Amino acid sequence: MTIRHFLTTQDYSRREIDELLDQAAEFKRSPQGRQLAGKAVALLFFNPSMRTRTSFELGAFQLGGHAVVLAPGKDAWPIEFEVGTVMDGDTEEHIAEVAQVLSRYADLIAVRAFPKFQDWAVDREDRVLKAFARYATVPVINMETITHPCQELAHAMALREHLGDLQNKKYVLTWTYHPKPLNTAVANSALLIATKLGMDVTLLCPSPDFVLDERYMAYGEENARQNGGSLQVSHDIEAAYRGADVVYAKSWGALPFFGQWEGEKAIREASKHFIVDEAKMALTNQAVFSHCLPLRRNVKATDAVMDSPACIAIDEAENRLHVQKAVMAALIGQG
Amino acid sequence: MTIRHFLTTQDYSRREIDELLDQAAEFKRSPQGRQLAGKAVALLFFNPSMRTRTSFELGAFQLGGHAVVLAPGKDAWPIEFEVGTVMDGDTEEHIAEVAQVLSRYADLIAVRAFPKFQDWAVDREDRVLKAFARYATVPVINMETITHPCQELAHAMALREHLGDLQNKKYVLTWTYHPKPLNTAVANSALLIATKLGMDVTLLCPSPDFVLDERYMAYGEENARQNGGSLQVSHDIEAAYRGADVVYAKSWGALPFFGQWEGEKAIREASKHFIVDEAKMALTNQAVFSHCLPLRRNVKATDAVMDSPACIAIDEAENRLHVQKAVMAALIGQG
Amino acid sequence: MTIRHFLTTQDYSRREIDELLDQAAEFKRSPQGRQLAGKAVALLFFNPSMRTRTSFELGAFQLGGHAVVLAPGKDAWPIEFEVGTVMDGDTEEHIAEVAQVLSRYADLIAVRAFPKFQDWAVDREDRVLKAFARYATVPVINMETITHPCQELAHAMALREHLGDLQNKKYVLTWTYHPKPLNTAVANSALLIATKLGMDVTLLCPSPDFVLDERYMAYGEENARQNGGSLQVSHDIEAAYRGADVVYAKSWGALPFFGQWEGEKAIREASKHFIVDEAKMALTNQAVFSHCLPLRRNVKATDAVMDSPACIAIDEAENRLHVQKAVMAALIGQG
Repeated sequence: MTIRHFLTTQDYSRREIDELLDQAAEFKRSPQGRQLAGKAVALLFFNPSMRTRTSFELGAFQLGGHAVVLAPGKDAWPIEFEVGTVMDGDTEEHIAEVAQVLSRYADLIAVRAFPKFQDWAVDREDRVLKAFARYATVPVINMETITHPCQELAHAMALREHLGDLQNKKYVLTWTYHPKPLNTAVANSALLIATKLGMDVTLLCPSPDFVLDERYMAYGEENARQNGGSLQVSHDIEAAYRGADVVYAKSWGALPFFGQWEGEKAIREASKHFIVDEAKMALTNQAVFSHCLPLRRNVKATDAVMDSPACIAIDEAENRLHVQKAVMAALIGQG
Repeated sequence: MTIRHFLTTQDYSRREIDELLDQAAEFKRSPQGRQLAGKAVALLFFNPSMRTRTSFELGAFQLGGHAVVLAPGKDAWPIEFEVGTVMDGDTEEHIAEVAQVLSRYADLIAVRAFPKFQDWAVDREDRVLKAFARYATVPVINMETITHPCQELAHAMALREHLGDLQNKKYVLTWTYHPKPLNTAVANSALLIATKLGMDVTLLCPSPDFVLDERYMAYGEENARQNGGSLQVSHDIEAAYRGADVVYAKSWGALPFFGQWEGEKAIREASKHFIVDEAKMALTNQAVFSHCLPLRRNVKATDAVMDSPACIAIDEAENRLHVQKAVMAALIGQG
Repeated sequence: MTIRHFLTTQDYSRREIDELLDQAAEFKRSPQGRQLAGKAVALLFFNPSMRTRTSFELGAFQLGGHAVVLAPGKDAWPIEFEVGTVMDGDTEEHIAEVAQVLSRYADLIAVRAFPKFQDWAVDREDRVLKAFARYATVPVINMETITHPCQELAHAMALREHLGDLQNKKYVLTWTYHPKPLNTAVANSALLIATKLGMDVTLLCPSPDFVLDERYMAYGEENARQNGGSLQVSHDIEAAYRGADVVYAKSWGALPFFGQWEGEKAIREASKHFIVDEAKMALTNQAVFSHCLPLRRNVKATDAVMDSPACIAIDEAENRLHVQKAVMAALIGQG
């Protein structure tokens, strides 16, 4: 029997995504349920979290289940992911045992594992998540690795709430400055979900160095073709914002300089003007603005934008709770 | 609509305090309830805790709710509290977003945030707690900042249990030695609640340097006036203990030397004799003794005092559970 | 009234052990119950854990209770265990207060406290666990100190599941290499439970230095006498494995070099050939293999052994959940 995981929205059809969003809307109206009565969810955080942990933990509770929060290497043993290794180094336990044992205790395993930020060729293999999916005997959920599919659903839900039909809406994913080169996960995910929902997507960034990994660019183009939307890259701020219905901001590190971040520093520092501000928002078609949070105010977006009615970031964050309940209920729910 | 918080007992009338204590006594007799059925409580610990965390978490459970425990900066992002800052430093997220998002997930937010111990003029503004109260759209509870109102209620409940009517009982709040200059929160709180309950309060400390902040001294005097009690400061151990009905011990740092603690070290080190011992307790009117815990034995109080029937510190600690359930039920309870 | 704790299986008769295992098997068939409805369990981890924490937390949940997870010294205050000390050092709170207060909040206290690895004469007194048992007014469970009785029950349950009647089965407890000198707890426990179940036990280790503490050797001999089994020490790998029905692997530090580990390094490094591999397993009577986990693959046991049907370590780990529910239900369960 094949286990259905939730590793990426690419494994889910447009129709399945719509069903998850419908169920999430139902949970938003009526939060309490018994779909997970007596069920256990193991939340593994290789990296810290507030929204993700709170929303999963409370989501499980509201449906009658219980989430156990584990931080491997901190309050659990460091884990080995290579196959066939002689484990005489730092790791005390192999993922094969971790995943199998957790599968005996819990009905669902959710994993957050960010890239190591040293070698993109390694990080893009997403091996922590894939190892859990390989060895676990229960469904596995991606709580952010090199994509962030739970955020995608929360984002899509907020857009549906505020814009209704999303077909061929103009969607701008804009890179913004941040002092550190960040994970591309949410940017990859924004591409995936915006194209899957049939929007006309512009990826706005300072230079070709900031274009996303070819895998996600290719998925985005395929999604656009299948769903009647489009995908283009732009380095022209004004052109990108003009007529936009959605502005989604995110900072990320330029992949050609992955692990040798000094090489992108000059471009990064010269691109602080990518900040989302009122002047740029005035170019749009009264666009909604969102961001996955955490957001550095007056670095990624100004106070004026964050505090304006156009900002739906809080709604998007709230929706994490609802969409994750929908995903958990779809994977292991009863009744 | 104004949200009712629980930030300080000064926001609550004597009658409201009595009602909370009555409800707490009811919970002590009958611990299980459904007042928080399906409700979520977010517990934010900027500083560590054992009693507070355990009692809140179990209190929520016993009333059908669920508490999520978060440690910002450890398993959550570091938070910005200033308004209008360009957030290009260490903080990743503004309190405006944190408080709003948590308000979407949880029905109640409780916050522990100790002073930074560098500048009392800053710390006395209690800005972390106030920022949560400002931005949250759900009630906020103070789990100890520069006062500790939950401890006040637990203390008052223990006194009522052991002494009955507290009006004009002689109450001694005695400073004791501790190797480090500690928070004045519990001392401030002891003043507030003892005066609110109409007791005759003596603040006993080694020198005028150890008198508490003028804000709390003023509140104490106002409370004493309104409730028929009194408040005085003493540096005379024998006079203070003589005839006391209650001895409450706490160590704290001298405010004039806040952040420059070397200046108070000589007085502190010369004041180890403020320890609560059997000889001092023999001067009292068979007083009960208490402390908020944690307590360093044979530094703040001797083993003989701690292990005597006069010591009600364990009862006070237990009462944290009951009074906090009363506060949560009052703020968000149903039925 | 004497409180019944679960500190060591030596405090439990063979019949009581069998009853716990029967109840655990019942919970394995039917996991949900109300035996702990409304009950609170405090889990104190002085050392990290994954399986123990997850299985206790979920076990409490499945029986209607709630577990609070505390890590003293990390998210709680550092604790003093000596009696009569002037606490002017690092510890902020005495075990007398910690245990009494937790007993007011929780119906059960479970403690993990590994040795300090400096002085075996001190560590073998197990004073953290014993202090909790002394001061607590509720039952205390050993979650691994210098023995690991919960692991014993899980191990015994897995052996019963795979081998049925265990009387006079040949049981080999084999030392294996690990880069660090580890706790003897699980090895001590393996001796205790294997002899209690009437098996013919061989303790296989590189040299007499690796024989276990005389207390546990003596208990093992007494158990063997009472239950019709036997206990012997061997340094001959081939003789030990030949005809074995059970191979249980564990690494531990040699007690004569406790705290001065350089002294055992040469023997340790020269004993990597104690690894459990297919050639050794081929000498047995189609033995089952197990280990308490975490296990370093290809250091303690080869991939081939771990991935073979003979390996029952995952079953043993799963059984932690079931046996701990049985222990909790026996100590504080209702109905």
